[in-house]
Amino acid sequence: MSIKRIGLLTSGGDAPGMNAAIRAITLKCINAGWDVIGIEAGYNGLFSLSSRPLTHQDVDNIIQRGGTILKTARCQTLKEDNGSELAAQQLDKLAIDALIVIGGDGSFRGATQINKFWPKPIIGIPGTIDNDINGTDQTIGFWTAIETALSCIDKIRDTADAFERIFVVEVMGRDCGFIAMESGIACAAEQIICKEIIENESDFLSKLYSSIQHAVTWQQTQSYVIVVAENALSISAQTLAQNIQSNTGVDTKSAILGYVQRGGAPVAMDRVLATQLGIAAVDALVQGKSGVMIGTLNNTLVEIPLADTGLKNTANQALIKRLKQFNFDLTD
Amino acid sequence: MSIKRIGLLTSGGDAPGMNAAIRAITLKCINAGWDVIGIEAGYNGLFSLSSRPLTHQDVDNIIQRGGTILKTARCQTLKEDNGSELAAQQLDKLAIDALIVIGGDGSFRGATQINKFWPKPIIGIPGTIDNDINGTDQTIGFWTAIETALSCIDKIRDTADAFERIFVVEVMGRDCGFIAMESGIACAAEQIICKEIIENESDFLSKLYSSIQHAVTWQQTQSYVIVVAENALSISAQTLAQNIQSNTGVDTKSAILGYVQRGGAPVAMDRVLATQLGIAAVDALVQGKSGVMIGTLNNTLVEIPLADTGLKNTANQALIKRLKQFNFDLTD
Amino acid sequence: MSIKRIGLLTSGGDAPGMNAAIRAITLKCINAGWDVIGIEAGYNGLFSLSSRPLTHQDVDNIIQRGGTILKTARCQTLKEDNGSELAAQQLDKLAIDALIVIGGDGSFRGATQINKFWPKPIIGIPGTIDNDINGTDQTIGFWTAIETALSCIDKIRDTADAFERIFVVEVMGRDCGFIAMESGIACAAEQIICKEIIENESDFLSKLYSSIQHAVTWQQTQSYVIVVAENALSISAQTLAQNIQSNTGVDTKSAILGYVQRGGAPVAMDRVLATQLGIAAVDALVQGKSGVMIGTLNNTLVEIPLADTGLKNTANQALIKRLKQFNFDLTD
Amino acid sequence: MSIKRIGLLTSGGDAPGMNAAIRAITLKCINAGWDVIGIEAGYNGLFSLSSRPLTHQDVDNIIQRGGTILKTARCQTLKEDNGSELAAQQLDKLAIDALIVIGGDGSFRGATQINKFWPKPIIGIPGTIDNDINGTDQTIGFWTAIETALSCIDKIRDTADAFERIFVVEVMGRDCGFIAMESGIACAAEQIICKEIIENESDFLSKLYSSIQHAVTWQQTQSYVIVVAENALSISAQTLAQNIQSNTGVDTKSAILGYVQRGGAPVAMDRVLATQLGIAAVDALVQGKSGVMIGTLNNTLVEIPLADTGLKNTANQALIKRLKQFNFDLTD
Repeated sequence: MSIKRIGLLTSGGDAPGMNAAIRAITLKCINAGWDVIGIEAGYNGLFSLSSRPLTHQDVDNIIQRGGTILKTARCQTLKEDNGSELAAQQLDKLAIDALIVIGGDGSFRGATQINKFWPKPIIGIPGTIDNDINGTDQTIGFWTAIETALSCIDKIRDTADAFERIFVVEVMGRDCGFIAMESGIACAAEQIICKEIIENESDFLSKLYSSIQHAVTWQQTQSYVIVVAENALSISAQTLAQNIQSNTGVDTKSAILGYVQRGGAPVAMDRVLATQLGIAAVDALVQGKSGVMIGTLNNTLVEIPLADTGLKNTANQALIKRLKQFNFDLTD
Repeated sequence: MSIKRIGLLTSGGDAPGMNAAIRAITLKCINAGWDVIGIEAGYNGLFSLSSRPLTHQDVDNIIQRGGTILKTARCQTLKEDNGSELAAQQLDKLAIDALIVIGGDGSFRGATQINKFWPKPIIGIPGTIDNDINGTDQTIGFWTAIETALSCIDKIRDTADAFERIFVVEVMGRDCGFIAMESGIACAAEQIICKEIIENESDFLSKLYSSIQHAVTWQQTQSYVIVVAENALSISAQTLAQNIQSNTGVDTKSAILGYVQRGGAPVAMDRVLATQLGIAAVDALVQGKSGVMIGTLNNTLVEIPLADTGLKNTANQALIKRLKQFNFDLTD
Repeated sequence: MSIKRIGLLTSGGDAPGMNAAIRAITLKCINAGWDVIGIEAGYNGLFSLSSRPLTHQDVDNIIQRGGTILKTARCQTLKEDNGSELAAQQLDKLAIDALIVIGGDGSFRGATQINKFWPKPIIGIPGTIDNDINGTDQTIGFWTAIETALSCIDKIRDTADAFERIFVVEVMGRDCGFIAMESGIACAAEQIICKEIIENESDFLSKLYSSIQHAVTWQQTQSYVIVVAENALSISAQTLAQNIQSNTGVDTKSAILGYVQRGGAPVAMDRVLATQLGIAAVDALVQGKSGVMIGTLNNTLVEIPLADTGLKNTANQALIKRLKQFNFDLTD
Repeated sequence: MSIKRIGLLTSGGDAPGMNAAIRAITLKCINAGWDVIGIEAGYNGLFSLSSRPLTHQDVDNIIQRGGTILKTARCQTLKEDNGSELAAQQLDKLAIDALIVIGGDGSFRGATQINKFWPKPIIGIPGTIDNDINGTDQTIGFWTAIETALSCIDKIRDTADAFERIFVVEVMGRDCGFIAMESGIACAAEQIICKEIIENESDFLSKLYSSIQHAVTWQQTQSYVIVVAENALSISAQTLAQNIQSNTGVDTKSAILGYVQRGGAPVAMDRVLATQLGIAAVDALVQGKSGVMIGTLNNTLVEIPLADTGLKNTANQALIKRLKQFNFDLTD
């Protein structure tokens, strides 16, 4: 079967750089003489048949924009009993010959299911700020989210210093500590808290309070910043801050960075990565590949079966080792 | 009495640009042959006699830094019964001939009290991100806070568009709607909520829900951003988001920008304003002035008696008029 | 005559915030039940009849974008002998009832000429980074250009400090020193050079070299940054740097910031100003005004006859006074 | 011999992230019970014996600063006949037990020479924005320079679009095309020019002019951005722009980004890399290593003999292949 019409969609949480991937795929396909059909709002656009051809002009000047021009969504219909079968029929209605899905682990599970009823090529591109997809060192949007978090924490450091305060800053990452770890190292956080390093929360918190108490007593820093990954603890950032204040007597504030981490112009690295993965996805189709995600491991493009992607093992030994390596807390 | 030693302190909430004022005052005083004594952590440094002379080198390369190299604090001791009298004695112990206070309304109240027991020149410079000081169009830090809020909301707009979501974004301002108003206008917010425009909260919210419902039904925008000033409503940003979602059926998220608005490199306007006010404060001392705050009204430097500063009238008619002028909500 | 169709164009050098004005005008007109016809590439679009109606959707999400969605140009045809008469005819062909021009002094001269042959309302909005239009304290784009220049000079300061170097940094401004002055004050430049303060270039440069020599000898700073307005001197920034190096023996580099100063997301102040001026321009049409530019003087909206706009007097005494006020050079 | 006093210097062109490395090394050494002696202004500080112990406080809040708190320089004395021998003597005068040099290929050549006369451990850390050091995938400062260049080019794109202009943008890189390549891919440059891809300049330029002519004729883009590495061509960016204009008839401007690329707060990636390399350098000393640079290849820390570092092979086949892969120019 020869490919003539590529379907393209973004699905799940949006991530800066998705537009760069959309651009690369579109230009590469146009170069190859293929049509690219943008499907809107993730898999929802399949069911509602909301789609439009993408032209050179459509992808002009989008490489620098956050969000996704195709919109995104988490699709309920696909998860229903015969959702995958129905999706397959809709793809045929749109006369799609091959599908490229930019998204995260949920999006790839959906793609794998659809492939059972639609035996045409499907290629995945990892797009999520959480960097929690198995089989790739990086996902599109990860370094932009870190940079955004970092520039926020740099600002918080200014006011923390001025008041000699303790700050608890919650960053995103769903169930993964990667954003917390990299932004925490980069902002010279006094503590980085993520699920991966906690064996017993109660013990961990006791040790934390005593470690902070020690640092504060010895006045080793003007301020004390704790970067905590969302979902790392059973208590909220606000409660953690209150507990620290009551345990140490030092004024402690909290900040939840939240959705700002999802937006903004992508950093260079995410634009380059997204462009590279987009080109490779089209190349993979040319080579007859299907059912794989294009990832990058040790600076090399790789193809991972979509079925093997899933979430990264959160008991990530490398991450724990890395975190310990960066621990300059002189109280330990 | 001839002035030889200037005391200088920053007090209350820190604001980007305070360092620019410290620099200007220090250089201007050195030029005049005066010594500048930096008092640390606001009025606390008086009581603990924590101070140090400021040199040309100390203020080199600080104009671009957030926070304050002198630290800041809200001082409890000063508010105690004989706090002002004690502060006056401490100023004499430090052999201070004149005092410059960079801060907000609370800091100026403190200065006014001290002046009763210490009959030497005191000059105030308005430094607070909230822009809530009477007698000046702008305070140091205001436009930096707006810019920080704006760049965050621009990022939130990206993800709001991608998901076609409603977002409630809470900005700072203490009891004033200025940050909400300016950042809201600048980000093209669909709604700007501040205390000044609410007569009856329950009525206001009913009208808000119905206005949102109307906009959403007619799909006039890809996303809907509501900028709300802290303390404007009796309910939290999170609760407001939940109420909107239950009233409209549209996915609604909230974000509290929080302390990031206090930090960061000051924008040009705040650096220029702070430099100008710092120079004018020293000039005022040269001219024998005392008990005044240097402000700016309609691009002209003015001197306002510290006792008249206080908080701006929050039932600000100009602000209400301005907000209505910018209301593009087509549903009204 | 009742107005039904507004023509809108941007002309001359583009400035960040022009899109915010386009948005405000479009929404305000739609609210009033008027059509807005966007004319492309300045007055060129008149002659080529390149125009399109602007909708709510067209101006969605443009407030945060640099450039102008209507494109801009400097139009040669308009300057030709019967250019204005022809332009008037083209406006009639497009059935335009009133015209809003966003641009600088050249654009307003063009508008004034057209008005002689086309007796319908024309309103001007000052849009240029140079802030060189008579009759307004600020033009759209001015503070964004300053902020961009400032963030560049902050970066240059880092490397200047590391090497203890002298840097000559050229900023834009056409024949006006405003960008140089504000960015120079804000970056703590050791010297700010603009045409307005130079009486005799040769004398000025001699004094400059000797002032630098003095500062360098006494090592009062780690680095020495000179901000110079384009066209301020008869020699280039590069030649000035070479002359300083040969006069002082200190390693001296130059940087020409150039066109980066024209682009980028507008700062909050420019978005608010542009929105305000756009609304006021439509209001002026409602009130039957014509042949005026909407400006802002001392925080108040004003209407200036287009014929009186022209370039600001470059022998600006206020500017010179202001500059001297900020001169902390201890060698003087 | 047991190590007690570490000498630390930054040398050659400064790069954002050098301070992060200084911080990591200092904290790690303090943890190990060692003294760290900061030597000022590169090897110059050896000859002038300008040095000072670095404390925890000295490295507080420097991770986010561009430049280097130790200053840097290109040292002439070291290159003189017995420069290395003299440097060795000075190291002994300072009672240094081991030396860590953060810099580029010239700095490492110097270190290798000194090691001949000073048989104590020397470790190199690659710090240069140019990423031109053999034996490491990345150098400290590289991604910050790319990000700075990118944000400038994004701004230039705005004005280029508004005027439908061609822009020639020169970026840094000394003799290497890496900054041009990555920033060019990230900004969606229509052309990326670096020395590595030019066999015959005259032929290359002819093909370039014709390729631009073709694109312009077919109006495939609103603007046309050419990113060119410094030293890639025998003609200046300005001359190239003039030639393009005379060949195509399209308005063409040039911009030389220059020294802004050397400064600014380092991006997260550079802070993390610098921290990691700093820790590894101290670890290497603990393990008795000497005469090696710590680099990173495929995400793994490596040690490369200083003598093997040198400049990367500029006829970089991987780079050429990579560039061709990203070439979306539809005219080819």
